[in-house]
Amino acid sequence: MVDQPVWEHIGSSFVSHYYHLFDSDRTQLGSIYTDASCLTWEGQQFQGKRAIVEKLSSLPFTKIAHSITAQDHQPTPDCCILSMVVGQLKADDDPIMGFHQSFILKNINDAWVCTNDMFRLAIHNFG
Amino acid sequence: MVDQPVWEHIGSSFVSHYYHLFDSDRTQLGSIYTDASCLTWEGQQFQGKRAIVEKLSSLPFTKIAHSITAQDHQPTPDCCILSMVVGQLKADDDPIMGFHQSFILKNINDAWVCTNDMFRLAIHNFG
Repeated sequence: MVDQPVWEHIGSSFVSHYYHLFDSDRTQLGSIYTDASCLTWEGQQFQGKRAIVEKLSSLPFTKIAHSITAQDHQPTPDCCILSMVVGQLKADDDPIMGFHQSFILKNINDAWVCTNDMFRLAIHNFG
Repeated sequence: MVDQPVWEHIGSSFVSHYYHLFDSDRTQLGSIYTDASCLTWEGQQFQGKRAIVEKLSSLPFTKIAHSITAQDHQPTPDCCILSMVVGQLKADDDPIMGFHQSFILKNINDAWVCTNDMFRLAIHNFG
């Protein structure tokens, strides 16, 4: 049996944690960002934990459920981890939509935090 | 008029260059990778310019055309650039397919090279 590389383990743990928080109480997502983190959400840019959580909290749905269909993780030259996620989401009673999201994770003070986050609905594949 | 941030400019120039090379002669893509670069192509991992170009060159189509529908760029804490691309591609006479790809670009010896590359077809959004 080959051990899973450490970045795969850290990346997939982060991904589980992120979508679990997002789907259960997205106002709690501040814990995974720093004051320098960047989010690009459907082309709109936000910087810093506070602005990011404000954006995510104000998204216009009450219930959301993400389902991951593929995820990839790589180590970067600066000891970070790049993660790319592909999946589907269901918000309130809207039809299921595809999405993709990329993260950079960095170890700061012994904790893995998200420094970069980009989200797009899959509708852009068919623009 | 607000100037485009430098990372947007570098990221979008890279994206144009990459897909232009890919669509015209993908055996030339070695110039944008280093010997430490990582590629994850539909879940398969490759490391180093040589292995990456070998994989890309051996993909089973003759003609390919990419069309970009959205691209996002961010600076990373380590002076790299994260780029995420969403688009469509047409390979030979196959139907048009959606795809998404993420890159990390790093400035090494005054040139921007791609250290990390992840590609997935959009079919995984509907798995």
